[in-house]
Amino acid sequence: MKNDLVLRAAKGESVERTPVWLMRQAGRILPEYRAVRSKLSGFKELVETPSLAAEVTIQPVDILGVDAAIIFSDILVIPDAMGLEYQMIPKKGPYFPETLKSETDLNRIHISDGSELKYVYDALSLTRKELNGRVPLIGFAGAPWTIFCYMIEGQGSKTFSNARKMLQSHESFSRKVLDMITESTINYLKLQIEAGAQMIQLFDSWAGILGVQTYRSFGISYIERIVNALQGTVPITVFSKGAHFSLEDLSKLKCQTIGLDWNTPPKFAREIVGNNFTLQGNLDPAVLYGNGKDIVNRTEQMLKSFGKNRHIANLGHGVYPDTDPEAVKLFIKTVKEFKHE
Amino acid sequence: MKNDLVLRAAKGESVERTPVWLMRQAGRILPEYRAVRSKLSGFKELVETPSLAAEVTIQPVDILGVDAAIIFSDILVIPDAMGLEYQMIPKKGPYFPETLKSETDLNRIHISDGSELKYVYDALSLTRKELNGRVPLIGFAGAPWTIFCYMIEGQGSKTFSNARKMLQSHESFSRKVLDMITESTINYLKLQIEAGAQMIQLFDSWAGILGVQTYRSFGISYIERIVNALQGTVPITVFSKGAHFSLEDLSKLKCQTIGLDWNTPPKFAREIVGNNFTLQGNLDPAVLYGNGKDIVNRTEQMLKSFGKNRHIANLGHGVYPDTDPEAVKLFIKTVKEFKHE
Repeated sequence: MKNDLVLRAAKGESVERTPVWLMRQAGRILPEYRAVRSKLSGFKELVETPSLAAEVTIQPVDILGVDAAIIFSDILVIPDAMGLEYQMIPKKGPYFPETLKSETDLNRIHISDGSELKYVYDALSLTRKELNGRVPLIGFAGAPWTIFCYMIEGQGSKTFSNARKMLQSHESFSRKVLDMITESTINYLKLQIEAGAQMIQLFDSWAGILGVQTYRSFGISYIERIVNALQGTVPITVFSKGAHFSLEDLSKLKCQTIGLDWNTPPKFAREIVGNNFTLQGNLDPAVLYGNGKDIVNRTEQMLKSFGKNRHIANLGHGVYPDTDPEAVKLFIKTVKEFKHE
Repeated sequence: MKNDLVLRAAKGESVERTPVWLMRQAGRILPEYRAVRSKLSGFKELVETPSLAAEVTIQPVDILGVDAAIIFSDILVIPDAMGLEYQMIPKKGPYFPETLKSETDLNRIHISDGSELKYVYDALSLTRKELNGRVPLIGFAGAPWTIFCYMIEGQGSKTFSNARKMLQSHESFSRKVLDMITESTINYLKLQIEAGAQMIQLFDSWAGILGVQTYRSFGISYIERIVNALQGTVPITVFSKGAHFSLEDLSKLKCQTIGLDWNTPPKFAREIVGNNFTLQGNLDPAVLYGNGKDIVNRTEQMLKSFGKNRHIANLGHGVYPDTDPEAVKLFIKTVKEFKHE
């Protein structure tokens, strides 16, 4: 591999410079992506067409110069594979015509053995071939709690109070669903790795909506099963957005990297998780709306705050779709040229 | 006053027991509220009709037995008074037909001297009279950053990326708007106090979307001006939801009480803010979806964690509209009967 900085940083090996990539780098920020997307019927067609998914996955490597590619896909392919189909409504986001309301709805879903998601593995193999060792390829999945949120709520929400109500009022049903998601995700990720994913990231986008105890019980315990099932394969990153106060719990996981959102000060996180984890993040994505001077200053500040080793530079959340690609390039350039004292 | 526990707790005086009230206690959780609301054209009619606003403000005192009333109103009356009208769309939430897009839009808004909001002061006076000293009456306003979010974005959002983009890309314009909101809010709150509000709460619902530095510069500095302008009047509570890492900055404010969301462990907060503040909160509102045993356990755990003095019990966010009033009553009963060791 020509550039394995991200993998080496994840393993805690020393690196010449801090590696950098962006969550959602393959997507709407690039005109080249929008050109591909505009010819299609919808978002799902892109996700489900391996040659096109591979094409947009590689775009940011060519155009932005990131140190890793992340497969273009969606966390909601898992409920889809389990039998709960999602739609992507333009300007609104994901929508599930059917949701899980009670025990009887369990017969509408099944544990996926991963076979429904062949298009993802095909996209991964194709991308690996076309990347030809330039940078590592990251696979991903949603963490069970976040997937559960969508399967109960059916769409985005500020409070996900239906999903949280389900945890409190129907614990046994909730755990059955979380179990099924967990098993499906393990099968899915094993097949992603087989198909060529060289690193895995778990996205727990709605972790921060739960309190520390609830997240430990209904969130982290299922992540732990996934992480344990993948031991001995590839490095794993867990990104529990908003779960600042769960860092101590997260630091008991056997993953290599912990993702941080932009609200979590790097030194605060390092003190809690210790030196055996790589940290990933965490520039405020809104900084990329600002002027060049600000972008450089804030990026350098972030790099200093994390230190040279055990850090993979990224934003603290997915890059916003209306971000100027030039601002993204400046962020990447700043990371690449930065010299730690 | 028959029951001034909340005021004494806010001032740091010793109390016989922990006082308790709930954010959004006057609202959809009560069938008695829904009965009043169902006869009206919409939410705004209720907000703007003092006799009815007073009626629903007092309902939770009578029905739930809370230790404070909070005036039934909305934080968005301020942009409304400044010239930017809001609508409340059923099942969707607030919506602004016009938003602020650039410097030229400044001529569409003005600093409110507070006179546009007579209906709020009338509701406060009426409520004070009808409460007849049973419990204190709380007035409130949105904090400037949160109001700014709606004036730019025009509606709710998961990321408020337009508002954050404005801060980064048009700082001078953003500060002009924040200044105007701040001055309007000061005028408004002074008149609320004159009309009978015995305590004031500032709600910064979207504080947590900003990083520590950005929130210091664009959030807390404006709150500080409001808090300073109200010195020597009534106790003030600042509730910056999600801004865990700004607690140190918040502890420099001359307010009496700091509100905590359910993600912030009480001991973590106490260590940072010291002993000169009362803390308010912070049960996870989703706990009230659970069974009685859980509600009692989690409430008692919270009370122990805060300790007897300098605490006002509340949820860590507004009570969810579909919460069973019996669960709310059990929460209140548990607080009232709890004996600190």
